[in-house]
Amino acid sequence: MSSNRDIDALIEMMAKLPGLGPRSARRAVLHMIRKRGLLLTPLAELMQTVAASARECLNCGNIGTGDICDICASEARANGLLCVVEDVADLWAMERSGVFKGRYHVLGGTLSALASVGPEDLRIPRLLDRVKTEGITEVILALNATVDGQTTAHYIADQLEGTVALSSLAQGVPIGGELDYLDDGTITAALNARKRF
Amino acid sequence: MSSNRDIDALIEMMAKLPGLGPRSARRAVLHMIRKRGLLLTPLAELMQTVAASARECLNCGNIGTGDICDICASEARANGLLCVVEDVADLWAMERSGVFKGRYHVLGGTLSALASVGPEDLRIPRLLDRVKTEGITEVILALNATVDGQTTAHYIADQLEGTVALSSLAQGVPIGGELDYLDDGTITAALNARKRF
Repeated sequence: MSSNRDIDALIEMMAKLPGLGPRSARRAVLHMIRKRGLLLTPLAELMQTVAASARECLNCGNIGTGDICDICASEARANGLLCVVEDVADLWAMERSGVFKGRYHVLGGTLSALASVGPEDLRIPRLLDRVKTEGITEVILALNATVDGQTTAHYIADQLEGTVALSSLAQGVPIGGELDYLDDGTITAALNARKRF
Repeated sequence: MSSNRDIDALIEMMAKLPGLGPRSARRAVLHMIRKRGLLLTPLAELMQTVAASARECLNCGNIGTGDICDICASEARANGLLCVVEDVADLWAMERSGVFKGRYHVLGGTLSALASVGPEDLRIPRLLDRVKTEGITEVILALNATVDGQTTAHYIADQLEGTVALSSLAQGVPIGGELDYLDDGTITAALNARKRF
């Protein structure tokens, strides 16, 4: 309670963001009010801009500011590689590495028998279309190394079998990782996929 | 990197908030874009409102939306009690407890020889004025239990000595606290201030 209605409403709404709770929302709001010109006003304006323009790319499911996202619109990215990810956050993570120069396809989740998510609930039919029509030569299955992620990868691999080259991300020891802190599954995968030194 | 300039700018600015870093800012922005109507647009509008209206109360230093904050403006709160706190966040914490019905005075920091903060850098002269003119009968020194907080409390007590009743918050075991986890200083204070059961 800040003794003011608008400020309280702002704190309450900030507290709904993932990673923030009531206490950190209060700290953030106080900080923003103190840095009004540098932070609060520009942030409000950016939010308005993004709220007005952000939308899902009709082609790949990425979030951008047009009907077709910048990656799908760029001819330079049409190199025959298509990277399939679960979520927009995964696409952003891949882009941060800066190493992948092809296009993406965001499924919007994983198949799940428990939550009754079938192929038609995800962007899988659209994926099969794109592979046929966009001259894709290799599909990289960059799904999370979870049970649902791997089930989904196997399902997509079954659907695309024989039409296109398929690959998945390598599994092993993360860079900077210490064996003592890794789980047995990762160590087993890294050992099975060992390469000549 | 989201492959979009506006969204990247929003993430970068969100990451400047206390308690958020680049990763949590990305999560928050993605969440907001997904809940655009419920979260992003109302949040942007609230921020605009607060940015346009929030200001420091000229009387006590609280943050509100007028020249005089709601607490100073309320006649019901003029009960002769004045609670002195370091920071607006401390005032908000006191208000959440809902138990104090008087007015506040926000110093805006603590005296500090190291950081060369003197009485005139804080709202101390204004405090001495208020005690004279607002019919204050008791000043509650609710400063933090830190070295600087207590130094400031002693300085203010010296200035007000003899003109008004002075008190400070009780020190002791916090509600729900376990002795094993408390520092020696707190246990000593709680023991010295023990009361009949």
